[in-house]
Amino acid sequence: MRLLLTNCNTTATMTDVMLEQARAAAAPGTIVTGLTPAWGPASCEGWMDSFISATAVLDAVLAYQGDGNTFDALIMAGFGEHGRQAAREVLEVPVVDITEAAAQLALLIGEKYAIVTSLTRTIPLIEDSLRSSGIFERCSTVEAVDLPVLDLERDEDATVAAFMTPARRALDGGADVLILGCAGMSYLQTRLSAELGVPVVDGVAAAVVLAEGLARLGLATSSRNSYAAPLPKARPGWPVGSALGRRPIVHTPTSPHHG
Amino acid sequence: MRLLLTNCNTTATMTDVMLEQARAAAAPGTIVTGLTPAWGPASCEGWMDSFISATAVLDAVLAYQGDGNTFDALIMAGFGEHGRQAAREVLEVPVVDITEAAAQLALLIGEKYAIVTSLTRTIPLIEDSLRSSGIFERCSTVEAVDLPVLDLERDEDATVAAFMTPARRALDGGADVLILGCAGMSYLQTRLSAELGVPVVDGVAAAVVLAEGLARLGLATSSRNSYAAPLPKARPGWPVGSALGRRPIVHTPTSPHHG
Amino acid sequence: MRLLLTNCNTTATMTDVMLEQARAAAAPGTIVTGLTPAWGPASCEGWMDSFISATAVLDAVLAYQGDGNTFDALIMAGFGEHGRQAAREVLEVPVVDITEAAAQLALLIGEKYAIVTSLTRTIPLIEDSLRSSGIFERCSTVEAVDLPVLDLERDEDATVAAFMTPARRALDGGADVLILGCAGMSYLQTRLSAELGVPVVDGVAAAVVLAEGLARLGLATSSRNSYAAPLPKARPGWPVGSALGRRPIVHTPTSPHHG
Amino acid sequence: MRLLLTNCNTTATMTDVMLEQARAAAAPGTIVTGLTPAWGPASCEGWMDSFISATAVLDAVLAYQGDGNTFDALIMAGFGEHGRQAAREVLEVPVVDITEAAAQLALLIGEKYAIVTSLTRTIPLIEDSLRSSGIFERCSTVEAVDLPVLDLERDEDATVAAFMTPARRALDGGADVLILGCAGMSYLQTRLSAELGVPVVDGVAAAVVLAEGLARLGLATSSRNSYAAPLPKARPGWPVGSALGRRPIVHTPTSPHHG
Amino acid sequence: MRLLLTNCNTTATMTDVMLEQARAAAAPGTIVTGLTPAWGPASCEGWMDSFISATAVLDAVLAYQGDGNTFDALIMAGFGEHGRQAAREVLEVPVVDITEAAAQLALLIGEKYAIVTSLTRTIPLIEDSLRSSGIFERCSTVEAVDLPVLDLERDEDATVAAFMTPARRALDGGADVLILGCAGMSYLQTRLSAELGVPVVDGVAAAVVLAEGLARLGLATSSRNSYAAPLPKARPGWPVGSALGRRPIVHTPTSPHHG
Amino acid sequence: MRLLLTNCNTTATMTDVMLEQARAAAAPGTIVTGLTPAWGPASCEGWMDSFISATAVLDAVLAYQGDGNTFDALIMAGFGEHGRQAAREVLEVPVVDITEAAAQLALLIGEKYAIVTSLTRTIPLIEDSLRSSGIFERCSTVEAVDLPVLDLERDEDATVAAFMTPARRALDGGADVLILGCAGMSYLQTRLSAELGVPVVDGVAAAVVLAEGLARLGLATSSRNSYAAPLPKARPGWPVGSALGRRPIVHTPTSPHHG
Repeated sequence: MRLLLTNCNTTATMTDVMLEQARAAAAPGTIVTGLTPAWGPASCEGWMDSFISATAVLDAVLAYQGDGNTFDALIMAGFGEHGRQAAREVLEVPVVDITEAAAQLALLIGEKYAIVTSLTRTIPLIEDSLRSSGIFERCSTVEAVDLPVLDLERDEDATVAAFMTPARRALDGGADVLILGCAGMSYLQTRLSAELGVPVVDGVAAAVVLAEGLARLGLATSSRNSYAAPLPKARPGWPVGSALGRRPIVHTPTSPHHG
Repeated sequence: MRLLLTNCNTTATMTDVMLEQARAAAAPGTIVTGLTPAWGPASCEGWMDSFISATAVLDAVLAYQGDGNTFDALIMAGFGEHGRQAAREVLEVPVVDITEAAAQLALLIGEKYAIVTSLTRTIPLIEDSLRSSGIFERCSTVEAVDLPVLDLERDEDATVAAFMTPARRALDGGADVLILGCAGMSYLQTRLSAELGVPVVDGVAAAVVLAEGLARLGLATSSRNSYAAPLPKARPGWPVGSALGRRPIVHTPTSPHHG
Repeated sequence: MRLLLTNCNTTATMTDVMLEQARAAAAPGTIVTGLTPAWGPASCEGWMDSFISATAVLDAVLAYQGDGNTFDALIMAGFGEHGRQAAREVLEVPVVDITEAAAQLALLIGEKYAIVTSLTRTIPLIEDSLRSSGIFERCSTVEAVDLPVLDLERDEDATVAAFMTPARRALDGGADVLILGCAGMSYLQTRLSAELGVPVVDGVAAAVVLAEGLARLGLATSSRNSYAAPLPKARPGWPVGSALGRRPIVHTPTSPHHG
Repeated sequence: MRLLLTNCNTTATMTDVMLEQARAAAAPGTIVTGLTPAWGPASCEGWMDSFISATAVLDAVLAYQGDGNTFDALIMAGFGEHGRQAAREVLEVPVVDITEAAAQLALLIGEKYAIVTSLTRTIPLIEDSLRSSGIFERCSTVEAVDLPVLDLERDEDATVAAFMTPARRALDGGADVLILGCAGMSYLQTRLSAELGVPVVDGVAAAVVLAEGLARLGLATSSRNSYAAPLPKARPGWPVGSALGRRPIVHTPTSPHHG
Repeated sequence: MRLLLTNCNTTATMTDVMLEQARAAAAPGTIVTGLTPAWGPASCEGWMDSFISATAVLDAVLAYQGDGNTFDALIMAGFGEHGRQAAREVLEVPVVDITEAAAQLALLIGEKYAIVTSLTRTIPLIEDSLRSSGIFERCSTVEAVDLPVLDLERDEDATVAAFMTPARRALDGGADVLILGCAGMSYLQTRLSAELGVPVVDGVAAAVVLAEGLARLGLATSSRNSYAAPLPKARPGWPVGSALGRRPIVHTPTSPHHG
Repeated sequence: MRLLLTNCNTTATMTDVMLEQARAAAAPGTIVTGLTPAWGPASCEGWMDSFISATAVLDAVLAYQGDGNTFDALIMAGFGEHGRQAAREVLEVPVVDITEAAAQLALLIGEKYAIVTSLTRTIPLIEDSLRSSGIFERCSTVEAVDLPVLDLERDEDATVAAFMTPARRALDGGADVLILGCAGMSYLQTRLSAELGVPVVDGVAAAVVLAEGLARLGLATSSRNSYAAPLPKARPGWPVGSALGRRPIVHTPTSPHHG
């Protein structure tokens, strides 16, 4: 099985980190290819970044597909970022957003889940994303560590320390399960779960198992109503990457995690 | 990986059918063992059946575990039946209910899902189950074919024909994806999807991939708040099966689907 | 008028206490008979206890009825426990659950009600019960004293003291009325109301007046849709009490409260 | 026990009809006094009528009380009309609105209730009243017979015939219980229930048993927050009835229903 | 364009203050006439005041119109008070309530708005008003300064100081925009916005621009369903003002704000 | 006052039509400048179009502003399209989306509004847009005429005829007010309102009066939380228009509507 994982931002090292997480979560035989968009923000921390990201990710996926590549499912690795419905409209294979994926698995192992994300300013985006997904009701709170996305990778101990205060506030408020509200925190999942004594869900890993599952069951995206293929029409300047002469970075799966 | 699948009713042939579905959905290397409760209704078609089933399934699972058996996740195969939270309270491994599982996968491949179940009288149970799960919001309707559960296996053509009217009503009402609202319909999934031209989700298959995924990721059920282990206390007459001298039927996985 | 009150647990002394509350609340001429299930948990403090209780209470009621006893309405005295819809399915007379009853009367005398229950772990059960009932919206909070159910009767002063902290938190949060979230607290209703200066609703008393009212008005439970009588079918091992040779305890109303 | 029932309109013959219903529903020993406001609309069929009614009913109740009369609970007999919260603010005794009362009893005997009212134009008022009450969620529909309130009493057969179409539409839509959405239909409750084969709830009767129950249990209205007594201040022209020299009609309970 | 602004209470000096706010907000050429009801409470601080106000305001508007005056839109200047739907029923011109108006503009300039009102006891009225309006969802909290309405004008510094604590609590809770929850605070809008560094919305000003906008676009109130003209019928004692020989005060727009 | 109106698509003739509508709605002295994005779809009829549009509109607005142009408020003229929150993040002046604007005015003149849009496939986008805005609750239905956006301008009689069926279905379902769910229908507003006898709201006109109102009152967008200015960071390829050497079309307001 071949999964395509798109980073929501243009920081290729972050794509590598997420790919590592994805490969650790994948079943034997699953190949996860990474894709870094050809253009767009270095990190997504707000509405503008999110909408640019949605467009740039879509562009990257269509470019990758246009080059004759195929894949069995798409993972969109932006926590709270826009764009999943458009990917569902243009692709036949299943599309799994890490925000939805994390919330779904959390719902299966706790009564109430909480999210701990990077910055306070992204909380309304995450709430909006979950509300659109129809799985917000059992979310008890969305909290922030207030560290920028690109700092999350730099100092593990500092990130863990910063995580503890909002995490404990969430648990005191009744949450049974925590979700890492930023793909940049994925590498901390095991450590945080051990220190807090509760399940901690990473959206990248969650999306891998859901994408594999949908593909294995042959469940394609519906092509009815709003998920039918886009109508043909003039779209000057689109695709943007091609017009700009920029191509997405394909992260070749040279060293599959499962030997 | 070892999954345990419990039928919600005491009809062992129905357990066999569901096991067949589960094995078809499972990854290579996954062993799915079936369990038919030692006591309880031959089929679940109402509130009384559902509460008896919840208790009898819990009893069966604890008896199976008490005999020294282990498993990596539990699948509860009753569409709309009660009991999932109790299983989460008593077990450490993940517990996946087929109602929740079907709705979760449906949410990933369509904007609105509809459920087509066996009898009109079970509609409020299914709605209640999904409302408790927090994933009811994007369900556009729950419809019924009005055939008893135990008749669903008997005549494939008649069942398919009966399915078409409520299915088309659901699609006309805006649903993008259909869910088979009764484990007894699982075997029709491929045929119905082909005839209707939309994805049709079977809860048993959905639960298999979610259970495998949770177990693979090491995501145990939270043990905080209401999912902490039951308090020790006197419970006269419990476990019922043992008091009755009845034991659940273990369906040995003699012929794994994937060679 | 004859009311049947079923305890949700097998502690007969607790049935006696609730009967005393019920008789104090009943109209002249109302006879309240108590029923302690033949099997099941000594107290209900979680999901497993709640589902076992639902089944054991149903079993007890059917056994009592099967012995030729009649009654005009059933009161289910478990705060947050499952089972009310099944009782409505099998009986023609009205069925009143003390959780719903308390919330209904609270809604008539305040804008927002709060519940103070025994243990934090039962909060999600109570929330689930009220959400299923459709009367959760004006509940401002569910708080816990964190004393086990069976301790609530032992030391009145300690129980009252433990009640004050969550009660004051609820009032500070905007509640106008409090509900005793455990039948074992019923005997404290008058004292707590006096000390806090707000109405305090006891579910047992509330259920008595609602049950009497429905019965007096001749309002039987609907027999349409999910409340139609259960379909006849094989249910091996059911009824459990009879199979176990255990009978529910009938608490004869020897000393009616109203002379 | 003494109940005071206020008509929402100034048609005294309608007060008499509702009193007859109330007395038929009341327990032995309950005295129900009727009150027809001194001013206001002859029937309530819209927002303007409803707000005038709220004020006129409050005026009537305060005038009645100001004359030294006491009562144990107030029943507000306007289906969908405003004013109940103001009555709770000014009185210490419990206040039961027939809209809320009907919905509460309906919730105890069915999964979903529907309302059949007089005119289509009043549907939004009833929906608003139930939404404010927090018990709208399990209401499946509000339908209208489209006969004016004052015609409902005139021809029983025509009213019953007109009722059947919206009632059957409601039942087809999944309702288990019907509510008479206008106090002027109360007298048809038994006949309609028999013809339709479902419970039919009359708000006046429902309010009587709830009012009796609250009063018997000593549950006064909360005096916290918005239900605290109105602040003293100048209110020129108020009370209106006194300023107009108009007094409400007190319907003396000369012939109690229960001998 | 001619706007009519009705105070919800009978304190004419407060009408003058609100008129000053309205004129400051109005477009050149807009004439805002004020109306103080002929009867009713000197200030609205509870349910009784609110229902009396609804009736008295309706009475005043009809009296003003009955004298042959015309206007292009009505502004109802009571924050949280009842009556807007009745005004929509009796008038053809648009009706804008300051509660709705403030919430609508706040929704356009922030993700979540909070309201800071006068007294804690009025919080449930404001919540009820916004819930009926269907724009409550993005309201993060309603807080109170706990100063009586008629004191708000007396000491600007004291009012501002009292405002800061609930305002900061609201901002800490995630609000982006604040609403002045009482028409008596309108004059502080600029100062509070400057001191807190967030937009502060005054309902009177908001209502002016919405009323002007609706009138300019020729958008009359719908006359379908519940907003159709009231049915003709006897309404003894109505209109009250006329029966009492009291007339509303018309505040002539002698000094238009925009030269 | 200067308003900037951005078309969501790249069809400049449609911008002209919307500008004509906007100018007809504007107050004397208001200058409305139009902007057609430099790139993107010729019409927006789905998720992909909507996300591309969000990015291209943002790009166009920033380019226009970067050229030293100023304006007092922005109108985003895409019905159901994404992007409004990003515009609020990057601009200090108020931003009004025509979807929100239409719904807000509709809420002031009716109890329930319905939307009639171009294509069935866009219904989920519109519902998602209104749900995110928090003003979806009183929307009774979203219906479609099923004519492509670019055909709506071509044949007025055919468009009106196609509009009637879904419009009458909406009115039969209880709507009091209709909203034109596509900016391309704006020119039909008067005719449709006359033929149907109900208010018909055009989002462009609604947005004009709201934008003027916010600007006149000095209500800027909040700069707290998610609406704070975007964080500075690398965004390769952004702005896209500049990288592509494409500039948005500025529609100079040569002939202001109001002399």
